[in-house]
Amino acid sequence: MAPGITAEKKTEDEQSSKNNLIHLSNPHLEKMKDDILYHFALGTSTHDFPALFGDVKFVCVGGSPSRMKGFIAYIAEELGLGSVGADYPNICEGTDRYAMYKVGPVLSVSHGMGIPSIAIMLHELMKLLYHSKCSNITIIRIGTSGGIGLEPGSVVITSQSVDATFKPQFEQVILGKTIIRSTNLDDQLAKELMQCSKEINQFNTVIGNTMCTLDFYEGQARLDGAICLYTEEEKLQYLKAAYDAGVRNIEMESSVFAAICNLSGVRAAVVCVTLLNRLEGDQISSSHDVLVDYQQRPLKLVGHFIKKCLGKE
Amino acid sequence: MAPGITAEKKTEDEQSSKNNLIHLSNPHLEKMKDDILYHFALGTSTHDFPALFGDVKFVCVGGSPSRMKGFIAYIAEELGLGSVGADYPNICEGTDRYAMYKVGPVLSVSHGMGIPSIAIMLHELMKLLYHSKCSNITIIRIGTSGGIGLEPGSVVITSQSVDATFKPQFEQVILGKTIIRSTNLDDQLAKELMQCSKEINQFNTVIGNTMCTLDFYEGQARLDGAICLYTEEEKLQYLKAAYDAGVRNIEMESSVFAAICNLSGVRAAVVCVTLLNRLEGDQISSSHDVLVDYQQRPLKLVGHFIKKCLGKE
Repeated sequence: MAPGITAEKKTEDEQSSKNNLIHLSNPHLEKMKDDILYHFALGTSTHDFPALFGDVKFVCVGGSPSRMKGFIAYIAEELGLGSVGADYPNICEGTDRYAMYKVGPVLSVSHGMGIPSIAIMLHELMKLLYHSKCSNITIIRIGTSGGIGLEPGSVVITSQSVDATFKPQFEQVILGKTIIRSTNLDDQLAKELMQCSKEINQFNTVIGNTMCTLDFYEGQARLDGAICLYTEEEKLQYLKAAYDAGVRNIEMESSVFAAICNLSGVRAAVVCVTLLNRLEGDQISSSHDVLVDYQQRPLKLVGHFIKKCLGKE
Repeated sequence: MAPGITAEKKTEDEQSSKNNLIHLSNPHLEKMKDDILYHFALGTSTHDFPALFGDVKFVCVGGSPSRMKGFIAYIAEELGLGSVGADYPNICEGTDRYAMYKVGPVLSVSHGMGIPSIAIMLHELMKLLYHSKCSNITIIRIGTSGGIGLEPGSVVITSQSVDATFKPQFEQVILGKTIIRSTNLDDQLAKELMQCSKEINQFNTVIGNTMCTLDFYEGQARLDGAICLYTEEEKLQYLKAAYDAGVRNIEMESSVFAAICNLSGVRAAVVCVTLLNRLEGDQISSSHDVLVDYQQRPLKLVGHFIKKCLGKE
């Protein structure tokens, strides 16, 4: 651990994990009369949160707004809650920062790309679930990623989210000081999801470590960004070291996702499809149709899981 | 400088700044037959870049897709290039990651929220401008921010982009090693923009330092996130220290924006309106109409600047 870096007490995490309600680690919120969730364009004085969201049990989050809209239509159909050609209104229609959709106990929210973007969404999501008095929440990130040593189209269920030096931690600067947070995810939930993949038996799925980076090009050792000051050999050396550390895919949101879910006491998982094998290239050059098919895989897997949890499978 | 952190040679930056073409610091690109700009859904083998973008001289970037669409309609009108009720098609219609609009020599591109999101966009934007053989490009980020010690609605033209410890630098992890990049912006351009604000004389504008953080809640010392483990006193102490270091506003993209523009040899500026005074609160609680008015200010300022550059003012 570098000088000036302090680890937070674990008791906070442990306490939360035994609590089925959302745990907000923020004593200041009790003093607030209203709470404006600015990036959702929702607020406690303008919206009845318990009525709108009180029955939510599953929250699925992903980068792309249109994919998250597609997911809600898919899950509505799967759960027998949809009607043919139904349109699902965007609950966050007052903003274009995020999109949010709901059907029955399932909430689907987009989070944009990268740690800061998903972190804003998660802060506001946890407050939304808290104000709505939700309990027994499961949150799953369904996304895309670059694979390492896997056939493109494989799905990775994250065992540990690791940083760019392969450590299972999330570094964050608060009041100018660096702190470290745990990026643990729920082992049992990962196993249940793996079992679902076996049951649907349509694509290769593995449990592995996921590297979470702050950049798509240089931060993921790509050779095709506007800037690249290393050689192909150095790139491959780095990706192979990642593979040796158990990394099977690379994306840009899982570490802060795990950290915030941990601190909020909700069980969480990350399920991402790999769009390419990074040991073989950098550009995402598969055809549109192939990529669309790949992107459906985490949705199918998580859809099956939700159906099973609700006894509809 | 912490152990293991190395500064890159300055020669790269200096070399670029004397070149009016886009400078790509990446020798690998020469070997690529095609280049797919995945997050724009554009590619050199499917799109004629010089024909589509060769005349671009000004690129304006901002977080929100709808604001950037609004900007292109506004600038078209201002430059006498628009027709009443004209619709401007989204050049990146094949994806919902970013939105891009063009009228005459002006390109308007959304970048989402946070350093990783704008970095992906900028890597692909620099390659787009390079493949298009553009020259003499000026790039301006027009955004929103939290102010420190300024009346809400004030506009800040960034002098230096500083990190959460008030240092004018951007730290990035490449192949697992931390490197430091310069976040210098063009002084002359900042002065020209300040002069434009005086000419339109509609709102308060200052030149000051901008703090760029990786998080909106804890990273900007807010008390209203889902997690907050510090006191109000500690918060104010931090924000006052930022003010003493010359920081007048806080946002989430300027550091990597400055770093990538520096390395690519384009002159760049950051113009953000402040939506609130962070010494007085955390929640963005102004009315919708007031916020819309504030958000127009950077657009007006930059619109005036572009008109003036083109001799249309």
